[in-house]
Amino acid sequence: MVSHEIPIRVRYADTDQMGVVYHSRYFEWFEWGRVELMRKLGIPYKTLEEQGVFMPVIEAYCRYRLPARYDDELKVKVMIRECPQAKLKVEYLILKDGGLVGEGYTVHAFLNRQGSPRRPPKNFVTILKKALANAQV
Amino acid sequence: MVSHEIPIRVRYADTDQMGVVYHSRYFEWFEWGRVELMRKLGIPYKTLEEQGVFMPVIEAYCRYRLPARYDDELKVKVMIRECPQAKLKVEYLILKDGGLVGEGYTVHAFLNRQGSPRRPPKNFVTILKKALANAQV
Amino acid sequence: MVSHEIPIRVRYADTDQMGVVYHSRYFEWFEWGRVELMRKLGIPYKTLEEQGVFMPVIEAYCRYRLPARYDDELKVKVMIRECPQAKLKVEYLILKDGGLVGEGYTVHAFLNRQGSPRRPPKNFVTILKKALANAQV
Amino acid sequence: MVSHEIPIRVRYADTDQMGVVYHSRYFEWFEWGRVELMRKLGIPYKTLEEQGVFMPVIEAYCRYRLPARYDDELKVKVMIRECPQAKLKVEYLILKDGGLVGEGYTVHAFLNRQGSPRRPPKNFVTILKKALANAQV
Repeated sequence: MVSHEIPIRVRYADTDQMGVVYHSRYFEWFEWGRVELMRKLGIPYKTLEEQGVFMPVIEAYCRYRLPARYDDELKVKVMIRECPQAKLKVEYLILKDGGLVGEGYTVHAFLNRQGSPRRPPKNFVTILKKALANAQV
Repeated sequence: MVSHEIPIRVRYADTDQMGVVYHSRYFEWFEWGRVELMRKLGIPYKTLEEQGVFMPVIEAYCRYRLPARYDDELKVKVMIRECPQAKLKVEYLILKDGGLVGEGYTVHAFLNRQGSPRRPPKNFVTILKKALANAQV
Repeated sequence: MVSHEIPIRVRYADTDQMGVVYHSRYFEWFEWGRVELMRKLGIPYKTLEEQGVFMPVIEAYCRYRLPARYDDELKVKVMIRECPQAKLKVEYLILKDGGLVGEGYTVHAFLNRQGSPRRPPKNFVTILKKALANAQV
Repeated sequence: MVSHEIPIRVRYADTDQMGVVYHSRYFEWFEWGRVELMRKLGIPYKTLEEQGVFMPVIEAYCRYRLPARYDDELKVKVMIRECPQAKLKVEYLILKDGGLVGEGYTVHAFLNRQGSPRRPPKNFVTILKKALANAQV
């Protein structure tokens, strides 16, 4: 498993009138974490798009466990467990003081500029395989 | 199954630089449809909150099948298949010209003003049971 | 002045923990109204983009007068008073039961596909001039 | 003038199909910066709300000068120039590599829990006056 953690501060715009974070915002935070994990691995998502590789979300899931509130300092932990064949699965935990606020996953396709499916780029696979192997040691 | 359909127009704010709707927006559309189904049943969500019943999302899932694009006219179809015990499951289809753009579900808890679990309100259950029974005829 | 009015229903996603609509949402509603006024005039914004005309917002202003709350039924009134030279100004009122919830404006540039300034398209100017002339009668 | 600067990374969710940041997002970034300036001054906004002081936005303005793009690293500079009487004005610059991406302001009222206007809290005024005086030296 390769993983990365980023801090998140809950903003007013994230809250709803129940006084907690509106549920769809978690999926934006998942994106923040995912992008930073890819940057850390050395395959920034922006570079992939410049090379003609697009990774749209084709599945998204979240389980909400504890309320996240205004001004909370959260952590998003992002994990990849397996090298993608046709699709990439990314998993997420949202943490507050060690407590589990939410958990979920997204699944991504690999598309070319025309929007047709393509294989994950070679360097992506190579880097991820190596990182997964190192992580197992 | 009780169901309801509402029209949605894709707005510029919904799109991202891939030229499609950003995935987290679907969950907002799910909310729009869910609220209108409840209004149609005669149990507007706003009234529930005024009576001290809160129904936060505790699970959310979406599968993205076809891209939704700027200015598209979509339909959100909302379905409830079962009367809630402790939780309510609501299902959704996003449709474009009959094609399936996306599908998903949300699961809701019932909380009181203090944020503790409570039973679904009686009139909610009564109305929903009756509607489900009528729908089966 | 040419104008158009559309209905808006306040959604849960629009609210914040103050129990009112988060202020940046008004700018999305402005967009909804603006796009529908253009459609009514016969110059849908989507068609403009297909023809290589982009109209990014270069200024945006809103004055918030009355709180908008969950499930409120609002109206967005959109107004254009003048034919654009280099820029188009669009004005907005947000209304609730006749009361003024908010008012604002946006200013738009005209850009080509390369992102350089260009003149407003001829048919846009022709149609708008005619509509403004008819409105004055 | 008291001021503060925070870094912002442009996220995919922020972009629209023009390939730039959708304009209403700037107002969320303004909020992020404003809240961090208040925290730095020693008057966190969350604490104000806990003490029954609410500061809704009653005016918001932004001028967009340069496009902000996906993955850009921006800075939000927040400035307060004057101690509030009935209203607080906060100004903002959005910067990219020293270039001016956008600039704007928000105006805030001071309300009590009932939503009625109230004076700015004494400690808020005291702290801000002192910070403004120190900044002038």
